[in-house]
Amino acid sequence: MRQNRVYITRLHKYRNTLFRFKALGLVRVFSDNLADAVGATSSQVRKDFSLFGISGNKRGGYLVDDLIKRLDELLGKDKEQKVIVVGAGKIGTALMNYKVFEKEGIRIVAAFDTDPAKFCQSREDVSVLPLENLPVFVKDHDIKIGIIAVPDFAAQQILNLIVAAGIRGVLNFAPIRLKTAEECVINNVNLGLELETIIYYVNTLGKGIPDANSDI
Amino acid sequence: MRQNRVYITRLHKYRNTLFRFKALGLVRVFSDNLADAVGATSSQVRKDFSLFGISGNKRGGYLVDDLIKRLDELLGKDKEQKVIVVGAGKIGTALMNYKVFEKEGIRIVAAFDTDPAKFCQSREDVSVLPLENLPVFVKDHDIKIGIIAVPDFAAQQILNLIVAAGIRGVLNFAPIRLKTAEECVINNVNLGLELETIIYYVNTLGKGIPDANSDI
Repeated sequence: MRQNRVYITRLHKYRNTLFRFKALGLVRVFSDNLADAVGATSSQVRKDFSLFGISGNKRGGYLVDDLIKRLDELLGKDKEQKVIVVGAGKIGTALMNYKVFEKEGIRIVAAFDTDPAKFCQSREDVSVLPLENLPVFVKDHDIKIGIIAVPDFAAQQILNLIVAAGIRGVLNFAPIRLKTAEECVINNVNLGLELETIIYYVNTLGKGIPDANSDI
Repeated sequence: MRQNRVYITRLHKYRNTLFRFKALGLVRVFSDNLADAVGATSSQVRKDFSLFGISGNKRGGYLVDDLIKRLDELLGKDKEQKVIVVGAGKIGTALMNYKVFEKEGIRIVAAFDTDPAKFCQSREDVSVLPLENLPVFVKDHDIKIGIIAVPDFAAQQILNLIVAAGIRGVLNFAPIRLKTAEECVINNVNLGLELETIIYYVNTLGKGIPDANSDI
């Protein structure tokens, strides 16, 4: 997943670069143009594009519009991406109305919780619904992506529930490793560990402890 | 930073394992014991420990208490880790009272914002203070760790400000690459990208697009 993030980040860079090229009036680009713009080699660019079935040719290069269209499909930019959140606690609530998601064409369509005090239905904000409504909601709205923002002890049970309902990709904020059948991909975000990584660095700064990067 | 996270995760596993060994009454452990418990090789364990100046010996192994003490120092578990948050928006507010941090001995001591509507001072919760108070606060409380949770356009300016105030490690939630002098380490968490990674997977599932992991 870590390695893939590098790859997907590169696809986003290609897409941003292609939009800039298009704005300049370019109809075709060469792998060299893109390589320079995103900081990759031209053979890497060709390899990336051939992976998803687009090939250029030495004389003609790639058609800018074709590449943008294909990248839009791959990155899910061709349509709004509907996502549910499970757990309307602090992190879940923050994500429900997170502006950065909106900018990327991601819409949180509903949140689910077991605590009736958190239920609310609103036209403007994201509704928080009872957890038992989740399976029908996911099926009715054809939702494939979910965010788990529940305490660690509840996370595995929630994962089982949402995968059974049809969710195929999960962003998991619970600091626990979840087990799933193969048809669902999980990306773990452990905010405690992210902060502890920084703490480690600051504690070892200037103390003569070698950078782990250099030797591991 | 990615590679280091693997290393630091392993240090946490050693520490957890050592506490379990200690609970069983063990005074000494061998690299083989730890290797088995954390899923590493014994030479990896010895290398990790020698990196921070602890060496065992073939007959005696390592002293459990010594290892725990050293790991506590390195991981910042020997004392409460004080952290500030800049930006009291959705993500910042969620992090201010995030239970997972508390469990790890991390305390968010204050948040800072430029919006007077967000200022508040409370005994129980984390106070939100005016940004201009930050430099003095950081110096007075000897704080080295900060979280940036401001919009991307403001993030670089905030980084400059907090590094000048004495912050040496930053967890950055703004979806932008920040530049800093060498004395400060930055760990970027891009939640949009984390979610987009999942969207990419789900969009390519079953469409015959090779897993990027296998070939990049």
